[in-house]
Amino acid sequence: MANQNIPYKIYLSEDEMPDSWYNVRADMKIKPAPLLNPATCKPVTPEELEVVFCKELVKQELNNDDPWIPIPEEIRDFYKMYRPAPLVRAYCLEKKLQTPAKIYYKFEGNNTSGSHKLNSAIAQAYYAKKQGLKGVTTETGAGQWGTALSMACSFFDIDCKVYMVKVSYQQKPFRREVMRTYGASVTPSPSDTTEVGRKILAEFPGTNGSLGCAISEAVEAAVSTGGEYRYVLGSVLSQVLLHQSVIGLETMTAMDKYNIKPDVIIGCAGGGSNLGGLISPFMGRKLRGEADYQFIAVEPASCPSLTRGVYAYDFCDTGKVCPLAKMYTLGSGFMPSPNHAGGLRYHGMSSVLSELHHQGLMEARSVTQTEVFEAAEQFARIEGILPAPESAHAIRVAIDEAIKCKETGEEKTILFGLTGTGYFDMFAYEKFHNNEMSDYIPTDEELEKSFANLPDVK
Amino acid sequence: MANQNIPYKIYLSEDEMPDSWYNVRADMKIKPAPLLNPATCKPVTPEELEVVFCKELVKQELNNDDPWIPIPEEIRDFYKMYRPAPLVRAYCLEKKLQTPAKIYYKFEGNNTSGSHKLNSAIAQAYYAKKQGLKGVTTETGAGQWGTALSMACSFFDIDCKVYMVKVSYQQKPFRREVMRTYGASVTPSPSDTTEVGRKILAEFPGTNGSLGCAISEAVEAAVSTGGEYRYVLGSVLSQVLLHQSVIGLETMTAMDKYNIKPDVIIGCAGGGSNLGGLISPFMGRKLRGEADYQFIAVEPASCPSLTRGVYAYDFCDTGKVCPLAKMYTLGSGFMPSPNHAGGLRYHGMSSVLSELHHQGLMEARSVTQTEVFEAAEQFARIEGILPAPESAHAIRVAIDEAIKCKETGEEKTILFGLTGTGYFDMFAYEKFHNNEMSDYIPTDEELEKSFANLPDVK
Repeated sequence: MANQNIPYKIYLSEDEMPDSWYNVRADMKIKPAPLLNPATCKPVTPEELEVVFCKELVKQELNNDDPWIPIPEEIRDFYKMYRPAPLVRAYCLEKKLQTPAKIYYKFEGNNTSGSHKLNSAIAQAYYAKKQGLKGVTTETGAGQWGTALSMACSFFDIDCKVYMVKVSYQQKPFRREVMRTYGASVTPSPSDTTEVGRKILAEFPGTNGSLGCAISEAVEAAVSTGGEYRYVLGSVLSQVLLHQSVIGLETMTAMDKYNIKPDVIIGCAGGGSNLGGLISPFMGRKLRGEADYQFIAVEPASCPSLTRGVYAYDFCDTGKVCPLAKMYTLGSGFMPSPNHAGGLRYHGMSSVLSELHHQGLMEARSVTQTEVFEAAEQFARIEGILPAPESAHAIRVAIDEAIKCKETGEEKTILFGLTGTGYFDMFAYEKFHNNEMSDYIPTDEELEKSFANLPDVK
Repeated sequence: MANQNIPYKIYLSEDEMPDSWYNVRADMKIKPAPLLNPATCKPVTPEELEVVFCKELVKQELNNDDPWIPIPEEIRDFYKMYRPAPLVRAYCLEKKLQTPAKIYYKFEGNNTSGSHKLNSAIAQAYYAKKQGLKGVTTETGAGQWGTALSMACSFFDIDCKVYMVKVSYQQKPFRREVMRTYGASVTPSPSDTTEVGRKILAEFPGTNGSLGCAISEAVEAAVSTGGEYRYVLGSVLSQVLLHQSVIGLETMTAMDKYNIKPDVIIGCAGGGSNLGGLISPFMGRKLRGEADYQFIAVEPASCPSLTRGVYAYDFCDTGKVCPLAKMYTLGSGFMPSPNHAGGLRYHGMSSVLSELHHQGLMEARSVTQTEVFEAAEQFARIEGILPAPESAHAIRVAIDEAIKCKETGEEKTILFGLTGTGYFDMFAYEKFHNNEMSDYIPTDEELEKSFANLPDVK
């Protein structure tokens, strides 16, 4: 291995880090469908959105035209505390698989939030601070986003209220404790602190909670403060994909520097924050006709929005308080099996990624939990990093592709996003070790039933 | 900050990484006292040690003369998977403290074992593999060493048996699960799987266990296999300090590159693995009269071997099966208060560091748990990294020194070792948040009682 020209880890220097985010919507000929006001079914206005979101973030959300948005200096300085993230050549994995493929991964787990979520959290906290807000509210599922936002709010000294999906709150007491270390308040959702929470609790007394429900609570908690708080979201939104483009931009700079051209680019997909961030700049090249790549979104078979959902306008939250978004969706009432581990449990998918998939520019695959944890353990043993269950979805398909190359003899260059570490997911690993993991997949009947609740738009 | 010449993080390139470990004993005029055979009170022979330890490691343990030991290529390749570790300029902390001091830390937590322990684990696993052994046994306290060794053994495909101090085993089920992910077997200590364990259980039925006791069990488990296993240890031994010198060597190269000269070098001290590794090359310069530095070892007030122990020959383990070592010790029967969090709970200190302290070349300070967690939380909020309780001992004193500089106006350069992350220590953080932390310090009477059991050597 030592005689390879490419190091195990490629670190950019600080001055090679991007100073603008890349907005892939600018290069899309057909733009993602606009968010709609659920009452009027007309595109939401900036004024309507500014009740919920920070002003500057609304601008970013609605900006389909500017390809480059400058990153404010304060955010770039914060990025320097934990970025650039390494682009790693998986020499050991290649050797173990005896594949002619070259495997690279962009590792986003080397920060205390344990994932890429910090890239957008710091941006959203910054704009909230700049707007003079007292604080922000949010939801968190697996806990990575909540942790990231707690860190970001602590840094800018604003208040942070997190609604955490109840099942995660119970299974991950230490996640809560990390958020507490950063001064956040954490409430299990659904809770009796909001109207929508009380309503859901009355209807489903024993519910484990869902992301869609926690979003409704967090939005209510923000808009009911009379303007001192705004709501922030860690995925799905176009602004989040914009911030996360820092992942792809760093990756592209590192690859260009060493003259590496990925053939396949793989990312796990829940709401789309990591996948969108990783692929955006590469997709830009593809859209502009400068290069071609195969993009693969990997989602859990237990929550298969891209592979089994419908492309339609839907509610973004259970309480139906948010704008409608056109996306691949399983229906806003969909809840993955209680046995589903980690994140990637949202019923819909980013409008940007949905539209790209719809146009045939990006493939999608689904994988079962057991396959995912097998890949996770194999990867941990060979490459040393214990991955988050979310990230392991991408590992699974990267390994599958590398094995295919072994069979065909193709020397493909495979790139995947390693979004985070699994240190707070050992409960799920334990289940896997004890063979207690379920691979439950929703039936067609269950999905049909869920689709029946889609809103009637036009 | 942006106009500073020194980046937030200094990463060496792969070819700047050390290709030899540095052995500080070679530059010491007065060498550390030799290990003694407890039966004869004569220096142990290589043959005696080879029953317990791998052959090559015995050589390293007894080598007081060669300043440089080449790092085998396989180990250097493994190092490249998670090293070089960044040397971080704590710009944000400096700003928050409004200190004229410049603060740097070497961060060893960016790997799945969560600490520097992997640096020696991979070396020890490598030599065991090379010797054709079936596996190794060890003990672990806070769990960092056990995790690191599990990873290393998994990489070289040899067996790994870990005896984990019972109180940690109970408080940290997820640590156990990580080791299991890497294929290790983990037994809470004291256990009924060894003679010495059964004896200790009979004498102290409700015991929480101790490192000294787990060492005895692991040694017995190794030597009773008829030669297929050897015992390995994650701290205290001179070979471990040798492997850990990679920390100090990288730090020194990075600092030399940017023309930075540290005035104060601070490390937390349990058995001495991190502290010894960090300071070794700098101490070498001091011993050779090339430069001067202030070295500060920081230990818990609840386990104060350097600050309140005696410098004498003592047993290294509770079961008294290991060689005798001359060191600062609290007596091999000493156990820190059950409320003591994290590692740094060993009753003695590395012979090398003990001798350096004895010669007045290195200072020592002790700090209480509450002070430590206050520093940990402050650091997490400002620098973004959630530190291990062990590491936070060094942070405490680094912050204290930086505040002193603010008072005196001195522009000192402070360097400390950030050994690891605290993701598996949230139980302790929770205690801290709930004000349930105890600052119990052993009384003079308790220590006197413990000293009474020192062996009678010469």
